[in-house]
Amino acid sequence: MPTALSTDLYEITMAAGYHVFGSTGHGCFELWVRDLPPEREYLVAAGLDQALEYLEQLHFEPVEIEYLRHLPGLRTVPPSFFDEYLPQFRFSGDVWAVAEGTPIFAGEPLLRVIASLPEAQLVETALLATLLFQTMVATKASRVVDAAAGRPVIEFGARRAHGTDAATLAARAAFIGGCTATSQLECGIRFGVPVSGTMGHSWVLTHEKEEDAFRRYADLYGNDAVLVVDTYDSVAAAHTIVAEGLTPAAIRLDSGDLDRLSREVRRVLDTGGRVGTQIFASGDLDEHRVAALVAAGAPIDGFGVGTSLSTSQDAPSLSGVYKLVEIAREGQLVPTAKRSPRKQTLPGRKQVWRVAHDDVYAHDVLGIADELGPDAGIPLLECVMRQGCRVGVTPPLRELQARCQASVRRLPSGVRALKNPHPYDVRVSESLKALAAARVD
Amino acid sequence: MPTALSTDLYEITMAAGYHVFGSTGHGCFELWVRDLPPEREYLVAAGLDQALEYLEQLHFEPVEIEYLRHLPGLRTVPPSFFDEYLPQFRFSGDVWAVAEGTPIFAGEPLLRVIASLPEAQLVETALLATLLFQTMVATKASRVVDAAAGRPVIEFGARRAHGTDAATLAARAAFIGGCTATSQLECGIRFGVPVSGTMGHSWVLTHEKEEDAFRRYADLYGNDAVLVVDTYDSVAAAHTIVAEGLTPAAIRLDSGDLDRLSREVRRVLDTGGRVGTQIFASGDLDEHRVAALVAAGAPIDGFGVGTSLSTSQDAPSLSGVYKLVEIAREGQLVPTAKRSPRKQTLPGRKQVWRVAHDDVYAHDVLGIADELGPDAGIPLLECVMRQGCRVGVTPPLRELQARCQASVRRLPSGVRALKNPHPYDVRVSESLKALAAARVD
Repeated sequence: MPTALSTDLYEITMAAGYHVFGSTGHGCFELWVRDLPPEREYLVAAGLDQALEYLEQLHFEPVEIEYLRHLPGLRTVPPSFFDEYLPQFRFSGDVWAVAEGTPIFAGEPLLRVIASLPEAQLVETALLATLLFQTMVATKASRVVDAAAGRPVIEFGARRAHGTDAATLAARAAFIGGCTATSQLECGIRFGVPVSGTMGHSWVLTHEKEEDAFRRYADLYGNDAVLVVDTYDSVAAAHTIVAEGLTPAAIRLDSGDLDRLSREVRRVLDTGGRVGTQIFASGDLDEHRVAALVAAGAPIDGFGVGTSLSTSQDAPSLSGVYKLVEIAREGQLVPTAKRSPRKQTLPGRKQVWRVAHDDVYAHDVLGIADELGPDAGIPLLECVMRQGCRVGVTPPLRELQARCQASVRRLPSGVRALKNPHPYDVRVSESLKALAAARVD
Repeated sequence: MPTALSTDLYEITMAAGYHVFGSTGHGCFELWVRDLPPEREYLVAAGLDQALEYLEQLHFEPVEIEYLRHLPGLRTVPPSFFDEYLPQFRFSGDVWAVAEGTPIFAGEPLLRVIASLPEAQLVETALLATLLFQTMVATKASRVVDAAAGRPVIEFGARRAHGTDAATLAARAAFIGGCTATSQLECGIRFGVPVSGTMGHSWVLTHEKEEDAFRRYADLYGNDAVLVVDTYDSVAAAHTIVAEGLTPAAIRLDSGDLDRLSREVRRVLDTGGRVGTQIFASGDLDEHRVAALVAAGAPIDGFGVGTSLSTSQDAPSLSGVYKLVEIAREGQLVPTAKRSPRKQTLPGRKQVWRVAHDDVYAHDVLGIADELGPDAGIPLLECVMRQGCRVGVTPPLRELQARCQASVRRLPSGVRALKNPHPYDVRVSESLKALAAARVD
């Protein structure tokens, strides 16, 4: 769980500035992804539940305040900031967000925060880290699951994740993106995600003979056992399984030419009467390798995908930003925006409307929050927090996963393509264009 | 902090198997990186302190045991595992490791664990996630710091890290790798890493005029202020600073052509008598962009590097493995190894000796732990934990950072090259070769 110090120093220097100069009127910030990473034309929103949890519990411990008080960079900040402001600090703003599991596109706000300037500013870093990471992994999972064409994909990436906490959150996001289970237990206990596991090579190595290792594992786990067969020779191991009279639920291939080996192993198992024993494949898989195996017709019943999922290996970050779009001037929130070359932003609080034709998403409209929106457009940003308290309850993860899969199926197929996907049509409303052209701040 | 469930289900199924079949003799596991990522010919070891902390505190909470007891995959495990084994479970093994901040190479063990099989097995996932992530980031930091050629590099990547916990650990690892500070406060309070910060664009946007934003910030932070100048136009902002009579410690450029802008802004500041105001650059920097700016002679005094550091963007994972290399047979530990095609491993517990000539590292020897080692070779693996208790104290981070920088300076310059680096000479000892050829397991 993030702490109050899970933020950048400059968020505090700015917050102190707002406090000192009495700039505690409201501001509106939006969080979005500027550009999609290579080979992606959609993202799957995820991480909102953790973001809201963070906002709800956000407070400064006395030891954290003392740490800040003694920082050289804050030595000119008046004591009232440390003695009065920080001890009572809570997040009391309003938050609007796109539901987890929803496909979104570049430039579309995932989250909108309306709060006093110091509050809205302080939460920037943790909100970005929380939402971008899970969104990135859910997106990757959606691609891998798409590639598997109905075969189960299990998230196996804990060991290569960016620490153990990232492993847990990656497994959660991967489940939203469509994985059927994770190997990581902390995600199981914390989020109720189904857990699944096989057997490691070390189990085989600790026995003098592979057949002893298999027999013992099957003695304990019966027909639930999944036996890893590539410690020495995968095909020979399949023969061993048959010869030993074992009927494992599945075997796991973890190295070598998975297409060829899966066919050979399938033949050995079938000839030996083990038609019910499934073949599970793992070992440096990603959406492209999974798609190639599926296209080749390899007799693989499920995939374990690790590093490429838990780190979103080919796109390990999203160009997410959190920008001020409205600021209080004379008691009223008015649009504002950054105008740096190549980093321009659209002013004002926004809404995204999704328009479908015949059950396929046709285009989105990015407009001003209080404009009417297109006919039959479904608004994506909903109020999820009012004055620091959550509105409604978070749906169970299975529901988010189902929503994600249903929504991804409604994307035009070109947008979902694993290679050279087509951009989705996101239109800026005339009102928003006019506002962007007109603002004089 | 990792919990007992920060692991994969199969570590528990195997541990239960060892328990049930009384295979609780010792095993020796080693953790190493198989292949270095592209453009890397060395790694900087990091994360050991967190790995040892994890091993020291590892235990199962009753609620975790109840969770495991009710998992479908463990339903055939006898109650004694849940009622007797897990409640008293502690890590009581011996650990040898390479000190944090030490350069290491492919195939060299970072860590060796000797413990009862279930103990050694259970900790695999968390040890890999903990050590690989920080090692990867420390390595990236070492490259960026090398590129900056003496100019300070500050870690700015919290917002794009894989969650807030990854942000804290990345900042720690980046400091070991040579960064002078981080923007992330949690890393400051937890690990004593110096924190540093500037000002965000939103501060400027909340004021009607840029000059008001600058003046107010300078009113509060005096000559410590670092003003971000690219909200509208970086050069115009530099003129504003001079015209307003401000003397900030530095200005920050965050977008545009940093080479050109730094020269123009330097000229404006110098002409205005602000020779003491430094120029700090940020915005999607990595080691290659930093090196190009340094080579071009851009008048930049320091760099803020974010995403590319905190996610090790071009190499966001390491191919780290944790493999059984010795197993108890008739009361004695004997060498063993996995022999899968393309994933073969060297058997037996190992040591790495580093040999220097004239203060430059010449080669390493990877040998059997108890062989004599080469003349003047310094062994890298040291005992850091005995029977579950730490041996010695962890040096302060500044010492690890100094060790890292001194050691990286001793690498042959080709090994440190940012592009097309040369491989370092790692030799396998004759004894280890003979053991690998001879083993009959």
